[in-house]
Amino acid sequence: MSRHVLLTGFEPFGPHSVNPSDLLARSLEGRIIGGRVIRGRVLPVESRSLRGRLETALREERPEFAIGIGYAPGRAALGLERVGVNVLDFELPDASGVTRKNAPVLPGGPAAYFSTVPLEEIADAWASAGVPGYISNSAGTYLCNQWLYEALSLTAKAPAPIPVGFIHVPALPEQAMQLGAEKTPSMTLELMLKGIETAIEAIAQRSVPQAPAQPQRTGEKVWIPGGVAKR
Amino acid sequence: MSRHVLLTGFEPFGPHSVNPSDLLARSLEGRIIGGRVIRGRVLPVESRSLRGRLETALREERPEFAIGIGYAPGRAALGLERVGVNVLDFELPDASGVTRKNAPVLPGGPAAYFSTVPLEEIADAWASAGVPGYISNSAGTYLCNQWLYEALSLTAKAPAPIPVGFIHVPALPEQAMQLGAEKTPSMTLELMLKGIETAIEAIAQRSVPQAPAQPQRTGEKVWIPGGVAKR
Amino acid sequence: MSRHVLLTGFEPFGPHSVNPSDLLARSLEGRIIGGRVIRGRVLPVESRSLRGRLETALREERPEFAIGIGYAPGRAALGLERVGVNVLDFELPDASGVTRKNAPVLPGGPAAYFSTVPLEEIADAWASAGVPGYISNSAGTYLCNQWLYEALSLTAKAPAPIPVGFIHVPALPEQAMQLGAEKTPSMTLELMLKGIETAIEAIAQRSVPQAPAQPQRTGEKVWIPGGVAKR
Amino acid sequence: MSRHVLLTGFEPFGPHSVNPSDLLARSLEGRIIGGRVIRGRVLPVESRSLRGRLETALREERPEFAIGIGYAPGRAALGLERVGVNVLDFELPDASGVTRKNAPVLPGGPAAYFSTVPLEEIADAWASAGVPGYISNSAGTYLCNQWLYEALSLTAKAPAPIPVGFIHVPALPEQAMQLGAEKTPSMTLELMLKGIETAIEAIAQRSVPQAPAQPQRTGEKVWIPGGVAKR
Repeated sequence: MSRHVLLTGFEPFGPHSVNPSDLLARSLEGRIIGGRVIRGRVLPVESRSLRGRLETALREERPEFAIGIGYAPGRAALGLERVGVNVLDFELPDASGVTRKNAPVLPGGPAAYFSTVPLEEIADAWASAGVPGYISNSAGTYLCNQWLYEALSLTAKAPAPIPVGFIHVPALPEQAMQLGAEKTPSMTLELMLKGIETAIEAIAQRSVPQAPAQPQRTGEKVWIPGGVAKR
Repeated sequence: MSRHVLLTGFEPFGPHSVNPSDLLARSLEGRIIGGRVIRGRVLPVESRSLRGRLETALREERPEFAIGIGYAPGRAALGLERVGVNVLDFELPDASGVTRKNAPVLPGGPAAYFSTVPLEEIADAWASAGVPGYISNSAGTYLCNQWLYEALSLTAKAPAPIPVGFIHVPALPEQAMQLGAEKTPSMTLELMLKGIETAIEAIAQRSVPQAPAQPQRTGEKVWIPGGVAKR
Repeated sequence: MSRHVLLTGFEPFGPHSVNPSDLLARSLEGRIIGGRVIRGRVLPVESRSLRGRLETALREERPEFAIGIGYAPGRAALGLERVGVNVLDFELPDASGVTRKNAPVLPGGPAAYFSTVPLEEIADAWASAGVPGYISNSAGTYLCNQWLYEALSLTAKAPAPIPVGFIHVPALPEQAMQLGAEKTPSMTLELMLKGIETAIEAIAQRSVPQAPAQPQRTGEKVWIPGGVAKR
Repeated sequence: MSRHVLLTGFEPFGPHSVNPSDLLARSLEGRIIGGRVIRGRVLPVESRSLRGRLETALREERPEFAIGIGYAPGRAALGLERVGVNVLDFELPDASGVTRKNAPVLPGGPAAYFSTVPLEEIADAWASAGVPGYISNSAGTYLCNQWLYEALSLTAKAPAPIPVGFIHVPALPEQAMQLGAEKTPSMTLELMLKGIETAIEAIAQRSVPQAPAQPQRTGEKVWIPGGVAKR
């Protein structure tokens, strides 16, 4: 049984005709990284349907872990999000024209969930690989934060929750030029790809079960988080 | 007779163990871009000797045009400098321990010289090539500004002044991580190289003498600015 | 029985000889704002003792609500923090030489608590009063975030939890000059004071119990959160 | 004969309904600072008529020195401009709908003029007075730069050129809120006023002729630059 990674991007939205997260998810779809097959999906920037789409993707793909990617023009480097908070607050309408004012992602849900991917290991791997990235303390209050909160909320109750993380990417060079090159940092798609691959490898390396040490797990077929998540 | 481009970088200085301008000048040394041979030189970050070294380089290389490259951590994109001003003002000592306080580059010299490379054409070429860059209105008051002022001062009196320009480059990804990836924009060496090449091509394209239009120049052998500059 | 507001600042720390939050807490100590007496306290920048000191202050002052103030050089305006997260992560040693690496504020505690002051009302009041301020989505991972998390954790279990909020303030003009005026936004102490007063008034206005609407509370003497908090 | 200072602001323009430079010039009109009477004038943001209006103002007011003020949203502190360059380059139309693309302020004019006010003394005075300010190396390529270039060009040929300088001011607090308080530094009108006054005092102090040292000048009535400038 092969192991999968769910990797999602978002469709272009608002004033942006290109969304680097869309390009990244499609570029990596089907690739094998860290011994895992990448299952790329591109989601519409639609707040109301996001939870349902994520739930479907997690159920269908049964991934070993899940990574969301989002576009954050103005950021200078890859931002590995530490926490998803139970807030939606945005004036820029999503693709369905929805706006939110200090509303919860999940009414009655906890204030926040911590990302369950190994933040320090990924940041260290980026440093070793020469990819500029950092641990970010806020994913904002738009759909990227919603993705992280929803995905963590959906997986938190599983017997063996899969690692879930979110990475914000800066503008592409072409986008920086449109937004004003003097003020807008950028990163090439190649370096973004390297950063996503490096992150996946770091997670995969940590997730690898060591056969001699955990033989019983293999027997039970529960050591593959993807297998657990489908229950 | 072949045509040359003088391309200078600076040595690493101060707290920085690597200077991308050094890497760029050495990487492109000997390369042929836009039909011109690149003559790369790396200059020490030494204010007092800079004019002499530039004068020597211009005399020895007899370039068709000259491009200086300098490192500007914190910038988000390539900065094509518009103007060199007659000011030195820096607290960070240069490689000889020199500092300057509101001092002239050239006592009695004009307040400023405009860059003589085609700014708009280079910026347009960067836009077409997908290289983030912009026309910058200040090269600062450190050695990069000095380079531009000195080089323009040295070439201004020539019968046919050669094009002279200066390009500031951002931090490399590795440097951004050391300086703090969250706050420090970066650009890969590959994209910087593409940007320098694109700029050189744009200048070369414009410098190409059109035989029918300027026949007399060809006869006098003065159409090669390098030939003029050596007088 | 008078009503109190606990207002805390932090002592100067690290490279900073002045802490505006210290000046603010001391300036407002004893003042009456929005009908409440301000009880100002200045806390050492000491992670290990912070919870204990906060608990003592809340028990001794029995405030109607509590506001923490912290210094965030580099910010452009007052930052009203939305959420305190269960993370400590700082390389700059606190006053006791302590550093933390991705550690919890409260082992086993929830990932985050939301601020319980009325964020929108305060932001609107700032807008009306001409005080630049915004709702911030991250209080960082230093002691300011710890303050908010601890204070919310300490008050969350009360039968009638008091409003708890945290406000980050920018550099003072003098500090901006030391840090580099070109790059460091600043705000005058007068405007900061106006901002803190405006926030307190906005909270006070909302906290005022309306006699007809909540008669039972008055009878039970539990409508004063301070009276509840001491249990 | 009294001594005057010409102090100009600009009218509100483009998307901005208020221009702090307008408020500053009008607030200080008629005030006595450093022993000089302030003559405030507010200029339209109109590139084509700017030189004529400046020439008229200098001729009519015969100032001892002249200070222009301009609005630079996004700056963090007062910016004392070092140099006016012979460039106009702006896409944001002025009040007459004019735009410029890499055009000269004065065809055939020198590349730049240095400000003739004492930059270091003003910066030091700001530091002493607690006003955040710095020496800026670029006034941009809009009308503020044009003002400085034109005013220096108009006065440069005088037998005793008067000091001419330009100060950029940040957004007011109210403006920062409209532009986004999180990203837009601001300064109160009071602090701006203090900064302008401090600058004028620093210039006035330096301009004061010392009777014993220059008795002949008093006799010739040429020590008042305003008297010279009218020729």
